[in-house]
Amino acid sequence: MKALKKIEKEEILKMERRYRAQLINSLGGFKSLALIGTRSVDGLNNLSIVNSVMHLGADPAMMAYIQRPTTVPRHTYQNIKETGYFTFNHVLPEFLTDAHHTSANWQDDEFKACGLNQADSTFPAPFVQESQVRIGLKFHEEHHISNGTILVAGTIETIELPEKLIAADGYLDIAAARSVTVAGLDAYHRAEPIVRLTYALTVELPKPLLPNGEK
Amino acid sequence: MKALKKIEKEEILKMERRYRAQLINSLGGFKSLALIGTRSVDGLNNLSIVNSVMHLGADPAMMAYIQRPTTVPRHTYQNIKETGYFTFNHVLPEFLTDAHHTSANWQDDEFKACGLNQADSTFPAPFVQESQVRIGLKFHEEHHISNGTILVAGTIETIELPEKLIAADGYLDIAAARSVTVAGLDAYHRAEPIVRLTYALTVELPKPLLPNGEK
Repeated sequence: MKALKKIEKEEILKMERRYRAQLINSLGGFKSLALIGTRSVDGLNNLSIVNSVMHLGADPAMMAYIQRPTTVPRHTYQNIKETGYFTFNHVLPEFLTDAHHTSANWQDDEFKACGLNQADSTFPAPFVQESQVRIGLKFHEEHHISNGTILVAGTIETIELPEKLIAADGYLDIAAARSVTVAGLDAYHRAEPIVRLTYALTVELPKPLLPNGEK
Repeated sequence: MKALKKIEKEEILKMERRYRAQLINSLGGFKSLALIGTRSVDGLNNLSIVNSVMHLGADPAMMAYIQRPTTVPRHTYQNIKETGYFTFNHVLPEFLTDAHHTSANWQDDEFKACGLNQADSTFPAPFVQESQVRIGLKFHEEHHISNGTILVAGTIETIELPEKLIAADGYLDIAAARSVTVAGLDAYHRAEPIVRLTYALTVELPKPLLPNGEK
């Protein structure tokens, strides 16, 4: 194995700001990408792309994302706090450029600005028509982190997904759904299955599962 | 586009427990995988695999993970609280089965139990020799979430990585480093680059970047 480069804290502190942002953002590994859909109290739709969607628990079903510091206006966060609802929408390669474009500093409806469509729905926050995995959430709690970021958590109220991609054991095959993942700030990737592994026990090595979750 | 299956909250509540765990865990998208290395005050090394590593910020450089509820003993969390240090180690395909095996209920040193090696280091928490991207962190803060999970955040103290995979703009190519990503509870994937995109502006569509970050 080749020697690894060591970088100490003092060296990180001295890095040029954008270089450091790229490097440190890459270290976290592949991240969960989604378009967050919200609606203002005045009815204006908002879309923003986030790379920090996370699973918190299945019972109750809860998810969260990390909101960047609100030192500049953040429509997404404001809408969630005012209306109580938001959606996560997985991104597909064919609308990736439009999804990335939502991160520009738009003042109007990002669906229209970026050429994406709102799905038919009565949910209080908008879903993205082009997305194949959509999650509707109700705001539940927030936790303010010392660097100004905020963990924003919600309960899952409704899900829309391609039913044929749910395995017998409940696993949704998001690689087959072609959901995009992101590394760093701007490096989008597709994922290909390596293996599913059995629940780990001390008495034996984990074994490959069939893709449908059966042993 | 084919019609999507809608699943409402009431239906999620009625699902069999393991089926629900698989489904809800899949919804978050591809997740950041790492082995967390810690050491007890008695000097016993601990390794556990987590699928919730996240980036919090680059200045100061901070990362976090979601600790599962401590209703059963959690050596990782206990060690972090007692010693103040932990490491994140990216997982490669060739030691994926051993990495997954760390999630069994071991009572002794998971390095030895799972056939992984500790890297030479003076850092207060152990690094995984087989890993190619290693991050040493100091505990900074924790936030208790209502479902019993805990956001555990640390500051980055040291990094070890393959220097030749850092692009001119600071981006670390973790696909070339072959870092594994996970979907759901047990579905491991490799990632392949689609595109890097330019910083988004309202006046034009984002454009592809060269892999080294240049326009």
